[in-house]
Amino acid sequence: MTPTDPFSDLAAALSGELNSSETAGVRIDASRRHRTGAPEVIYGKGKSAEQISVAIRRLIAVEGRALAARIDADQAATVELALGGEPIELDFDPVGRTLIARAPDRRPPSTGGRVGLISAGSSDRPQLSEAAAILFEMGCETRSVHDVGVAGLHRLVAPLRQMSTFDPDALVVAAGMDGVLPGVISGLVAIPVVALPTSTGYGFGGEGVGALTTMLQACAPGIAVVNIDNGIGAGVMAGLIANRAAAQRSS
Amino acid sequence: MTPTDPFSDLAAALSGELNSSETAGVRIDASRRHRTGAPEVIYGKGKSAEQISVAIRRLIAVEGRALAARIDADQAATVELALGGEPIELDFDPVGRTLIARAPDRRPPSTGGRVGLISAGSSDRPQLSEAAAILFEMGCETRSVHDVGVAGLHRLVAPLRQMSTFDPDALVVAAGMDGVLPGVISGLVAIPVVALPTSTGYGFGGEGVGALTTMLQACAPGIAVVNIDNGIGAGVMAGLIANRAAAQRSS
Amino acid sequence: MTPTDPFSDLAAALSGELNSSETAGVRIDASRRHRTGAPEVIYGKGKSAEQISVAIRRLIAVEGRALAARIDADQAATVELALGGEPIELDFDPVGRTLIARAPDRRPPSTGGRVGLISAGSSDRPQLSEAAAILFEMGCETRSVHDVGVAGLHRLVAPLRQMSTFDPDALVVAAGMDGVLPGVISGLVAIPVVALPTSTGYGFGGEGVGALTTMLQACAPGIAVVNIDNGIGAGVMAGLIANRAAAQRSS
Amino acid sequence: MTPTDPFSDLAAALSGELNSSETAGVRIDASRRHRTGAPEVIYGKGKSAEQISVAIRRLIAVEGRALAARIDADQAATVELALGGEPIELDFDPVGRTLIARAPDRRPPSTGGRVGLISAGSSDRPQLSEAAAILFEMGCETRSVHDVGVAGLHRLVAPLRQMSTFDPDALVVAAGMDGVLPGVISGLVAIPVVALPTSTGYGFGGEGVGALTTMLQACAPGIAVVNIDNGIGAGVMAGLIANRAAAQRSS
Amino acid sequence: MTPTDPFSDLAAALSGELNSSETAGVRIDASRRHRTGAPEVIYGKGKSAEQISVAIRRLIAVEGRALAARIDADQAATVELALGGEPIELDFDPVGRTLIARAPDRRPPSTGGRVGLISAGSSDRPQLSEAAAILFEMGCETRSVHDVGVAGLHRLVAPLRQMSTFDPDALVVAAGMDGVLPGVISGLVAIPVVALPTSTGYGFGGEGVGALTTMLQACAPGIAVVNIDNGIGAGVMAGLIANRAAAQRSS
Amino acid sequence: MTPTDPFSDLAAALSGELNSSETAGVRIDASRRHRTGAPEVIYGKGKSAEQISVAIRRLIAVEGRALAARIDADQAATVELALGGEPIELDFDPVGRTLIARAPDRRPPSTGGRVGLISAGSSDRPQLSEAAAILFEMGCETRSVHDVGVAGLHRLVAPLRQMSTFDPDALVVAAGMDGVLPGVISGLVAIPVVALPTSTGYGFGGEGVGALTTMLQACAPGIAVVNIDNGIGAGVMAGLIANRAAAQRSS
Amino acid sequence: MTPTDPFSDLAAALSGELNSSETAGVRIDASRRHRTGAPEVIYGKGKSAEQISVAIRRLIAVEGRALAARIDADQAATVELALGGEPIELDFDPVGRTLIARAPDRRPPSTGGRVGLISAGSSDRPQLSEAAAILFEMGCETRSVHDVGVAGLHRLVAPLRQMSTFDPDALVVAAGMDGVLPGVISGLVAIPVVALPTSTGYGFGGEGVGALTTMLQACAPGIAVVNIDNGIGAGVMAGLIANRAAAQRSS
Amino acid sequence: MTPTDPFSDLAAALSGELNSSETAGVRIDASRRHRTGAPEVIYGKGKSAEQISVAIRRLIAVEGRALAARIDADQAATVELALGGEPIELDFDPVGRTLIARAPDRRPPSTGGRVGLISAGSSDRPQLSEAAAILFEMGCETRSVHDVGVAGLHRLVAPLRQMSTFDPDALVVAAGMDGVLPGVISGLVAIPVVALPTSTGYGFGGEGVGALTTMLQACAPGIAVVNIDNGIGAGVMAGLIANRAAAQRSS
Repeated sequence: MTPTDPFSDLAAALSGELNSSETAGVRIDASRRHRTGAPEVIYGKGKSAEQISVAIRRLIAVEGRALAARIDADQAATVELALGGEPIELDFDPVGRTLIARAPDRRPPSTGGRVGLISAGSSDRPQLSEAAAILFEMGCETRSVHDVGVAGLHRLVAPLRQMSTFDPDALVVAAGMDGVLPGVISGLVAIPVVALPTSTGYGFGGEGVGALTTMLQACAPGIAVVNIDNGIGAGVMAGLIANRAAAQRSS
Repeated sequence: MTPTDPFSDLAAALSGELNSSETAGVRIDASRRHRTGAPEVIYGKGKSAEQISVAIRRLIAVEGRALAARIDADQAATVELALGGEPIELDFDPVGRTLIARAPDRRPPSTGGRVGLISAGSSDRPQLSEAAAILFEMGCETRSVHDVGVAGLHRLVAPLRQMSTFDPDALVVAAGMDGVLPGVISGLVAIPVVALPTSTGYGFGGEGVGALTTMLQACAPGIAVVNIDNGIGAGVMAGLIANRAAAQRSS
Repeated sequence: MTPTDPFSDLAAALSGELNSSETAGVRIDASRRHRTGAPEVIYGKGKSAEQISVAIRRLIAVEGRALAARIDADQAATVELALGGEPIELDFDPVGRTLIARAPDRRPPSTGGRVGLISAGSSDRPQLSEAAAILFEMGCETRSVHDVGVAGLHRLVAPLRQMSTFDPDALVVAAGMDGVLPGVISGLVAIPVVALPTSTGYGFGGEGVGALTTMLQACAPGIAVVNIDNGIGAGVMAGLIANRAAAQRSS
Repeated sequence: MTPTDPFSDLAAALSGELNSSETAGVRIDASRRHRTGAPEVIYGKGKSAEQISVAIRRLIAVEGRALAARIDADQAATVELALGGEPIELDFDPVGRTLIARAPDRRPPSTGGRVGLISAGSSDRPQLSEAAAILFEMGCETRSVHDVGVAGLHRLVAPLRQMSTFDPDALVVAAGMDGVLPGVISGLVAIPVVALPTSTGYGFGGEGVGALTTMLQACAPGIAVVNIDNGIGAGVMAGLIANRAAAQRSS
Repeated sequence: MTPTDPFSDLAAALSGELNSSETAGVRIDASRRHRTGAPEVIYGKGKSAEQISVAIRRLIAVEGRALAARIDADQAATVELALGGEPIELDFDPVGRTLIARAPDRRPPSTGGRVGLISAGSSDRPQLSEAAAILFEMGCETRSVHDVGVAGLHRLVAPLRQMSTFDPDALVVAAGMDGVLPGVISGLVAIPVVALPTSTGYGFGGEGVGALTTMLQACAPGIAVVNIDNGIGAGVMAGLIANRAAAQRSS
Repeated sequence: MTPTDPFSDLAAALSGELNSSETAGVRIDASRRHRTGAPEVIYGKGKSAEQISVAIRRLIAVEGRALAARIDADQAATVELALGGEPIELDFDPVGRTLIARAPDRRPPSTGGRVGLISAGSSDRPQLSEAAAILFEMGCETRSVHDVGVAGLHRLVAPLRQMSTFDPDALVVAAGMDGVLPGVISGLVAIPVVALPTSTGYGFGGEGVGALTTMLQACAPGIAVVNIDNGIGAGVMAGLIANRAAAQRSS
Repeated sequence: MTPTDPFSDLAAALSGELNSSETAGVRIDASRRHRTGAPEVIYGKGKSAEQISVAIRRLIAVEGRALAARIDADQAATVELALGGEPIELDFDPVGRTLIARAPDRRPPSTGGRVGLISAGSSDRPQLSEAAAILFEMGCETRSVHDVGVAGLHRLVAPLRQMSTFDPDALVVAAGMDGVLPGVISGLVAIPVVALPTSTGYGFGGEGVGALTTMLQACAPGIAVVNIDNGIGAGVMAGLIANRAAAQRSS
Repeated sequence: MTPTDPFSDLAAALSGELNSSETAGVRIDASRRHRTGAPEVIYGKGKSAEQISVAIRRLIAVEGRALAARIDADQAATVELALGGEPIELDFDPVGRTLIARAPDRRPPSTGGRVGLISAGSSDRPQLSEAAAILFEMGCETRSVHDVGVAGLHRLVAPLRQMSTFDPDALVVAAGMDGVLPGVISGLVAIPVVALPTSTGYGFGGEGVGALTTMLQACAPGIAVVNIDNGIGAGVMAGLIANRAAAQRSS
């Protein structure tokens, strides 16, 4: 496998071969998946339905699929209306607040990468759903277990053993409140852990700040952190790790 | 046992019976042990050797013993010189940085209260030593285990089982860095846990702030927190709990 | 009284005897009361009525009772509908925002533990009500006084004297704004004080941060703190202290 | 008494009558006492001995006296050397770290204003000494009591009653740690309280931040706050209050 | 004028002469005005209309007047209904969000104290209105000028000169955003300045934190600060200063 | 070109020639454009429609034009009603939330200053629109490019080259999230960059704090920062730079 | 390859087979490498030379090698003395402040994992050296480039192209100040990036906080963060990723 | 004047024409002055004398001059020794802590740009000296006035009028403590103000944070901010503004 030149897009832009036009204030990075291993994701918060629709159409044209995150039910409905007559299938997940658009029956290729998803509490599921959505787009297989927080350590036993038999290349572990779970798991397994703090919690250190701090201070190494509620970021990091491992398996 | 009037000292002061004179800027609260269950502690930081000596002499006169905390080696040596010819025995603990003064062979009465002391890392020992010193003054029996942090959960097993056979009335659990240990223990036992964050740790959430936050956000209830490095505070809280229980046993 | 092995549940899980199944993303810790001295509490915030109902049914099956906290009036009404035909009695407290569910006439056993509840201002009552609810589930007797803040110290006299005749094993003292009350009380009595900062207050140090800071910096030892508005946490800590003392009385 | 035009100095500067020359980077505000009721204070921290000496000479020339604050022993010694042969008397207070310079036997006029100074702990004395120094320069009479913190409320009784017989026009109340004292006193007396947080304390809310927060959140009104360790600021505020009252007495 | 014993209420409570009963969780401090120079203020936020009405009735019985702050239009309307048939006149100020209740035509006695009120921007008026309301209850005369912020220094000239001819005993200066005005005024006049930061402003240092910081760091002494938006606190502090001066005038 | 006396307005106010009257709590600074190079802007947030209308009328009388910022659609509609019959044309921009009022066909004079406006993401457009509005009032020509964030560096190439041919005197570069764009551009061009952090972003460092921090820590000099979302401030700074350069060109 | 049971050590401890004794307050986790894929690291800060020597001896006995981090020159010299006559070779790196101890000529096995190390500035080298040390212990091959910060983007071109030909499984990218580099690189390559903020920088957001924030807010996904200056943590995370990939290559 | 392609260096690097070699971990950006209008500055903090000497030699070779900032006296002396026999003249400024190196008698070309430098207090001089040093390297003429803080507004009159006759293209205004000066000046003149907060100040908002906040919240627009103590950054921003204006004058 020949490594790509990291600067090929930049060189193409400098020579004028590659251009990025702007529509409704949106400038799509069409070659992002090729360059960085993950497709561009449309960040829905604060965008108009028109902007989201424009972005979806352009990504569909290039990739056949598009993923929009942080989409609320109203935005989803309006985008559905806007794209009504077009050959685009839409799938809205109200838990993870993601919207998948695809040319008819277009599935992402499967890479063979494997990522385990673990939540400390039932309120951490939306963030894991967001991570699962981008992992699917990146071609990874995922497995999830929920509500295995450390207040009752024994609840972690069976789920983590099952997860272990799945033999994941990476774990995403989401936790709010005291954010203890990723560090405890990192002390039990030899798998890279992507820690995902969630905005669950109240009072001092609430809104995820306490969880983030705990994860940054974790005594057990083998753990790295993304920002609070950043399910996409956790998914892409874990997906890159898993796809790297999968590429070695298949080569 | 008849409950004391919480306001007896205040009433005595209002009627002029109880007065608190000031020497070298120090005003001793001689009735504190009787009123609150714990003797006054001399906080050494920033005090001159003269001020510490004055306070020691006055407490010895009332209680026969005195405990000074946050004493460095220089202060200890100077106080030793100052009190040289007097019938006061001094005992300096360089780890916990406490200085015990006592009239010859004067021991605190034993209450029968039992407190377990647990540290997550070897760098949390000074704070536990400070807690142990005040617990001794309050008449409690203590037992300690060290370096049982959660990065290797199995290391906690034997020490906590031993601690359990000691049947403590309360636990003081000290931890720095991610401060995870008190919450994990609180999820395993039916004993009140006084969580003591220590200023171990660096970077974001360092100096004990991350540990404090974790403890405040702990998912497992049955835990309450004192300020960072406040070994005296943790000890007094645990000592009050243990002495309350011990008083019921003996009554 | 033989101390329990803290790791019995964990050992049972490792040997496969104890399993924790997941329904609707919820995994109940059925043995928590036995292990930690306090029953599991359903944290209602962000949970669907279905999730709350599932959790109630499962806890009722094990314990005969269930306590849900942070429940708003809408959630309470929907849960009432969902559990309509079942032999479960529901009791919603709109002040403390707790919902008690019980198999017909099932009361928690009385332990004889005694906890005093004191608020600095009338706006701190919801948090004390939450604490009272869990203390009732833990079998403790409680007594409450309200609005005895230090802006008029004399208002504290009669209530604290009455409280003293109740001879409590522990106090929960709630305060917002400057959070001064727990420290002042701790300087007057020989009873362990669980300090409960509340999110009353505005401007710099508002939302309970100022109160929390004051309690952590309290000059009078014999006080430990839970997170802002954490009535459940304060209640469980005080309940463990009181039940420990009560167990000694009765043994 | 005719009120002064607040803009007289500014108008004089605009018309060119009043000029402020710069020596060694120092530009003295010679008319400050007349305009604002308090003389200019030389802030010593980070200034060279030469800069301090220049400032002293210029203020002596105008006012006959000069006060420098935040002066350490080394600076004091060097300034003493620099001003050696000149008819300037120097008085260094190592506790409050102030340096008074005066033309021989030049005393500030007495105004009759009365300010009470109260400290919560013995480590708050330096800040009160700084306040006392500027109050002396402003012509006020002061009285001080120390170490009357609220951990033993009865210790406050006699000192505050004595203070009350002094009949002060204003109080400066200094406290570190939890910073509770100013609010408690404000709830007991009808005198304006200038609250002075000090950098005593450690851990969360240490370095005076907890004390500052408590004072800003104080439930008892009749209190206003200056910055941490700002003894000069507290003194000037109290001095203006007292001198205003004294001016009414004498008019 | 004989100074009062600061502890008279406390002594009365200890001897059982003074008692504070609780109704609907509210415990009125009826002797506060006598003790501290300012009447108790009902803090409306989070209180039910019933609680507010109870408090009003009890204060009217003692003082003939009552002031409630932080009252929104809905609360005002409900309280008006609740007190409908009673001989209580109500006056709601929607700008300052204060509600005055009084026995028919009952005015507070006039003390002769004078306080000037100055705002930096037009959005700082509500806080000054709150201050003006309590100052009226304390018997002070007030004068106000608005929108004299330092972005155009010349706009300050005429208003401050007019204020100067009013010869106030104290100033309350309110400012949001950069909070510069109190310090600038303090450098121009010899009157104590109570600085009142307001929650105007956005971005970093918004919500009043920037204004508070500026006031605490003010280079010009003669200024002390209350919490963000604390109009009552600023008013009471200024009122105590002014009433002290006025008492000297009249004696 | 003779430099103006910076104090001419102040001198005029001191001599009584220049006065600033207050209407509905609003005090217009009519000479601001002459003195500071930028007209006064009406900050709409929290102002009533009446206050905004008063300010518009007074600015129109002096300048022929008025710009109000932070105006929402409701305010715009109400002001339109209020000014209905008057010879004032209104133009509301719902993206930048600015409202322009002008005497019929009154355009600001053109200065020849040139400012380039660049956004990192499509959600940063409102802030740039606000900047563009004040730049138009200051007589500058502007050019904008959008959505050129550094996640795909090649997207920056063509837009920045086009911007370069416009030969701007200054750039305003807006970015939220990690706020990286201004520093990267500053390392590529010899033009002063005014960095405008926007409140896009979530979690730790969200609401623009992360962007602000990045810009303050930028390794590439040639960049200065305004507050989060302060489009007016960024526009005025860039406009002053551009108009200074343009004045040199035309002289 | 059969996945290991994550709980094997815990089960062994519960059955009493595995015990962890304590010497001088240190409790070694001898099976950590087997369980988590990385050996235990001795954290030197605040440990005595005796504690470090004890830990080294015990790790040498188990693993043949030991790595201590955060060791200053004094500690290194004292440990060298203490272990003088023993068959242990020591290698101290004053830049990365790591101390390697090994039984004679004992090298870690090579795994074939490849990790690239990139620094933004020359002051970020110590942290990268720490990461390189643990990567060597984990059997990975590393390659480093330095001082390629984004203030001159062109300086990144050649080093990143060279890095690309090394075909690393993971990158560790260290940056202080604005912390921009990891995000820019993440937008150019399809390799997981472990971002390592360093405590370079001053003023607001200094000490690494600004860099950490930027990395958490990074627009380009494919990046996860460790705590400020945590070279060991970054190394272990990258090593786990690389060793996972290498294991697939060799299987 | 034809605008330069912002990407010329990048394109040259991509084609391999421009390379940046690394010596002792230092990678010089030799074309920075041409590209960005300001020469590279050597940041001395934490660099060895060898690294500084290498950087000086390489910059001298390209530019004939080199500027190093944040150099303490020890570093200066060691570098002087290291470069002893070479034809490089060194000039160390102990106030601004800058070290200028130049090939014999090599002066930067004069651009005709004019920048005014103003400090609020005498302790802000080092930061202004740093700014002056880089402005000299950029070819600008500077004029400075000191200690004109707003505590005595009249002191600002004469210095600002003198500054005005200098007719500067930009101002750098440095202030610590409350940081008020830049905003006040910005309200008086039509010149772009680069605000430079300094780390003068103590207590809450000390170390420059209060000054920074004030400047970001400034009510008077026409001001932009650099990081605390960043004299180089303030100088480069002002120099770019001035040189842009000067280029228009001369063209």
